[in-house]
Amino acid sequence: MPKQVDHRERREMIAQALWRVVEQRGVLHLSLREVAREAGISHGQLQHYFASRQALLSFAMDFAAEQTSLRVSRGLKELDDPPHPRDVLRLTLAEMLPLHADARATSRMTAAYVLEALHDEKIRVRARDGMRQERARVEQLIRQAIADGHIAPDRDPATETNLLLALTGFTTLIELDVVDPKDVLAAVDQHLDRLFG
Amino acid sequence: MPKQVDHRERREMIAQALWRVVEQRGVLHLSLREVAREAGISHGQLQHYFASRQALLSFAMDFAAEQTSLRVSRGLKELDDPPHPRDVLRLTLAEMLPLHADARATSRMTAAYVLEALHDEKIRVRARDGMRQERARVEQLIRQAIADGHIAPDRDPATETNLLLALTGFTTLIELDVVDPKDVLAAVDQHLDRLFG
Repeated sequence: MPKQVDHRERREMIAQALWRVVEQRGVLHLSLREVAREAGISHGQLQHYFASRQALLSFAMDFAAEQTSLRVSRGLKELDDPPHPRDVLRLTLAEMLPLHADARATSRMTAAYVLEALHDEKIRVRARDGMRQERARVEQLIRQAIADGHIAPDRDPATETNLLLALTGFTTLIELDVVDPKDVLAAVDQHLDRLFG
Repeated sequence: MPKQVDHRERREMIAQALWRVVEQRGVLHLSLREVAREAGISHGQLQHYFASRQALLSFAMDFAAEQTSLRVSRGLKELDDPPHPRDVLRLTLAEMLPLHADARATSRMTAAYVLEALHDEKIRVRARDGMRQERARVEQLIRQAIADGHIAPDRDPATETNLLLALTGFTTLIELDVVDPKDVLAAVDQHLDRLFG
């Protein structure tokens, strides 16, 4: 196996160990030592792949974002070609919510990263830029849907984007068993039905 | 000062120290030792007031919920009497978002509590029950607004409650500077305008 691929695979394996620590034991146990133990390598070996906690967290977050994109891409293939923008937005939002095991892992990883971002300027800038890019992608989808006549022209694309992304607030309501997943999806559908009139 | 009041005041003082640790240094630094240091008391004195980390977190969370209720009550006094249900819902939601220093402190406290809840069954049950009660209060407000003709009778109260509470997802978008606070309030107003049509 080429060395570069191996390096990437090791880094992904370590990132997944980090996710497991976050998911199973909580963000409070998130230390390099704990991640090394979960990955079954020494603290020194871990440092060979990631020089700092920041570097590991950032890679794990990028990897989580990649995994979410992959799930969305796979979902898109099961839709009509070209897919209806309503279906694309529903899939995008649903994959951000902890509605199945993989999405829950990336959702908890994101929550841990956001908390870290509040007190670490470098991570803050990365997290902010990542979310701004995601927000821009959703706004572009909505603008296109308005241009194509799927959404009424009097809707403000920026406001509709913000309202849609704010629905990620269902995360806490799902995690704490306050709202049932099927009721969450019913509410998301209701919101999208109104958006697409 | 009566002993009971003094005890309560000391506990509130300690809870506020815990908030400051959460707000300024992050949930990762949340240990009894760190809270004692911030409160300017010894670890032993802290344990006199709170036997465990769980007990302290639960009290701090109840206190945060109380403070949020107080802010909502104060806000209600500045509204018409009786207040319009739209204004009550707007105030309730706005005080859950980190739009000013006090609300940010209670919002970060809530985020820390939710994370702890994912890995601690006792805290999980308390957090879930607290949120279910809050959800029930909002649903009751919406049911009453439908009964009083402020909201169209074909709206489903449970779905509308879920959509409104999901908008607490603006928390992350505000904290990471992805959406401007004034755009958040504009989106909340847009949502409420449609609800009260």
